[in-house]
Amino acid sequence: MKALVTGFEPFSGERVNASIEAVRRLPSRVGGLEVVTAELPTSYARARAALEAAIARANPDIVLCVGQAGERAALCVERIAVNLQHAEIPDNDGALPVDTPVVAGGPAAYLATLPVRPAVAALHEAGLQAQLSMSAGTFVCNHVFYHLMHFAAMERYRFRGGFLHVPALPRPQAGNAPSMALEDIARGIEIVLGAAAPGLETRNQRPGTRD
Amino acid sequence: MKALVTGFEPFSGERVNASIEAVRRLPSRVGGLEVVTAELPTSYARARAALEAAIARANPDIVLCVGQAGERAALCVERIAVNLQHAEIPDNDGALPVDTPVVAGGPAAYLATLPVRPAVAALHEAGLQAQLSMSAGTFVCNHVFYHLMHFAAMERYRFRGGFLHVPALPRPQAGNAPSMALEDIARGIEIVLGAAAPGLETRNQRPGTRD
Amino acid sequence: MKALVTGFEPFSGERVNASIEAVRRLPSRVGGLEVVTAELPTSYARARAALEAAIARANPDIVLCVGQAGERAALCVERIAVNLQHAEIPDNDGALPVDTPVVAGGPAAYLATLPVRPAVAALHEAGLQAQLSMSAGTFVCNHVFYHLMHFAAMERYRFRGGFLHVPALPRPQAGNAPSMALEDIARGIEIVLGAAAPGLETRNQRPGTRD
Amino acid sequence: MKALVTGFEPFSGERVNASIEAVRRLPSRVGGLEVVTAELPTSYARARAALEAAIARANPDIVLCVGQAGERAALCVERIAVNLQHAEIPDNDGALPVDTPVVAGGPAAYLATLPVRPAVAALHEAGLQAQLSMSAGTFVCNHVFYHLMHFAAMERYRFRGGFLHVPALPRPQAGNAPSMALEDIARGIEIVLGAAAPGLETRNQRPGTRD
Repeated sequence: MKALVTGFEPFSGERVNASIEAVRRLPSRVGGLEVVTAELPTSYARARAALEAAIARANPDIVLCVGQAGERAALCVERIAVNLQHAEIPDNDGALPVDTPVVAGGPAAYLATLPVRPAVAALHEAGLQAQLSMSAGTFVCNHVFYHLMHFAAMERYRFRGGFLHVPALPRPQAGNAPSMALEDIARGIEIVLGAAAPGLETRNQRPGTRD
Repeated sequence: MKALVTGFEPFSGERVNASIEAVRRLPSRVGGLEVVTAELPTSYARARAALEAAIARANPDIVLCVGQAGERAALCVERIAVNLQHAEIPDNDGALPVDTPVVAGGPAAYLATLPVRPAVAALHEAGLQAQLSMSAGTFVCNHVFYHLMHFAAMERYRFRGGFLHVPALPRPQAGNAPSMALEDIARGIEIVLGAAAPGLETRNQRPGTRD
Repeated sequence: MKALVTGFEPFSGERVNASIEAVRRLPSRVGGLEVVTAELPTSYARARAALEAAIARANPDIVLCVGQAGERAALCVERIAVNLQHAEIPDNDGALPVDTPVVAGGPAAYLATLPVRPAVAALHEAGLQAQLSMSAGTFVCNHVFYHLMHFAAMERYRFRGGFLHVPALPRPQAGNAPSMALEDIARGIEIVLGAAAPGLETRNQRPGTRD
Repeated sequence: MKALVTGFEPFSGERVNASIEAVRRLPSRVGGLEVVTAELPTSYARARAALEAAIARANPDIVLCVGQAGERAALCVERIAVNLQHAEIPDNDGALPVDTPVVAGGPAAYLATLPVRPAVAALHEAGLQAQLSMSAGTFVCNHVFYHLMHFAAMERYRFRGGFLHVPALPRPQAGNAPSMALEDIARGIEIVLGAAAPGLETRNQRPGTRD
């Protein structure tokens, strides 16, 4: 049983991105799960290929993509990936798409297949601030989330997929902007992985692995 | 050189108050400062006597009162204590004062005598989210702050006084409400104390200690 | 050319709902559009039938459903209706669904077919505060919006559909909660209707009207 | 019985300031009050002289200064003017004072002498969103408010003074930023004036006007 966890490189001129900082701090095992990680570029043009390559390398049972949402105070387990991309700030290649689909002709949206409500319940039990979210936005986070679920809907992949938005790390001069300590974010990711694993063995067996 | 740091007991039906939790974690020395602590009741009727008793016991050079402000994301160094008390929620005795003065006939306000801007600069340098604040509200926090500065204005006391509002601890189900990790709050209090000490020896000498 | 505009009855113990108040103030014509209106119950069990009856009566070219979102400051043109219903507060029948689909077996989501970005541009031009929104929530508003777009996807209907979330009316004691004047909300609905009409004649001709 | 009401010119590169827009729409009488108005420069260096000249011209019984606070959703009746000026953005002369007193040697603060709580109650009764505020900030608004109350504390003036912060007007592209309709802001100012007048005749008689 293996989980792939991705984080994003910094964007919008910032020097750190809480998502990749926390992903780097993950242990190599969480319960019965082997954990591998990857960094994705904050780029509409390049993120999909990097995600697919990481999935191809890892052949994971679970994929959790993690991104930073600087205006949020809680760990946000995303429910839905939308077939829409629109940027208010340029991505790291300077791209500013206006209302284009992520996948032309793809369905309007996918729901996460990780158990989202149990994940939030487990986060609460661990004392972490968390909630479900109905929108991952239309920036590169949603773009990656949509591609992830689009892969998951294909024949050849067999993984549970989901997306976690995390607050920014404390930024001294950010006034009353919310933040979360790095340790809590990393712990939160582990907890979401732990909540995603149960029942996986019986439900997600690969073709050819049974006997 | 001695600092007295106070925190408040929980109020409004909550089970913890970030201020006293963090104050309890302070070491007994911060740099050249001896640190003593006290818990204050969240009570208009009883807080003043508890504060005065703690000051009388400690005979401190610095007094930093710490309170929790659940809607804030940053450590807030308060600048001004106002001669006004008004409660929207009952204190721990059920009191709900309406626009009464803290000290009848007292001045409209006192400014903190701790070096507030250097304190914020030191917090920023330590990577903590912090800002100056122009209002400690009109609840028991401001009541205590006003009494503190009223004591400090009296002949017989010789201390620098200030007030620090701290965010709530992470509350799992608080949705998008801001919070701060306990370790960061405790570290922040130490840093404010460190910023308050310089120059104290020469300026705040007690009567009788000079020669 | 005809538009049906719906608003909701009050809910959550409130005495007014900005959406129906504004809908009631609409004129019977906006540009070349005849405008008819209907009030929908804030009820998961009863809203769909009321919506369908209103559509059957009006046989409209455009359907704009309007709902109140008390935490928003701007007119929010919704982009996406999600196949998910979940309530944190009971609807007017006391229902509290937990993560159920709006339509079992329906697609994960529908995008609005009204021209959403031109609608926001027209609102801005009129001096009204407006933005696109990526989530209509999971309460009765989204339930109605999903059913609306599900109807629109069916063979027998030929209308453009969309959803507009409007701020609450000014509530004197709501502290710093956002609001919008009733006149501005009603004007905003007219503007969204005006932006929805162009090109409709040629594209949305009814069967039998062509020759 | 006469009231002077002041508003500010635009600042921070904006083209309108809700305060002066609303002040310009005031009628020349509100109940038994004659109303005169003045525009103040958003300048630490020039506002005081303009305020004093307007007071000297009008010889008012009531002075209400009005300013815009773009992040607020409610009409905010300010309670306290603080002897502190500090700017995060330059005023209209490019001044950026850092923690200087408004009046060197002046008291730490003044409380408004207009009846602030009755004013908020009257605003609520009129259906307007309103609250008391404990800080007018440290920008030119507070500077003017402090000078106003400093004048009021002097022997030669006999007026009730206060300050009202008003939301910004609707700004189309301001996203979820709060706002208030111009008509409501203007109506709010009238209501505050109406609430300020009672009891004035008997209490605030000028020397020499009695017989």
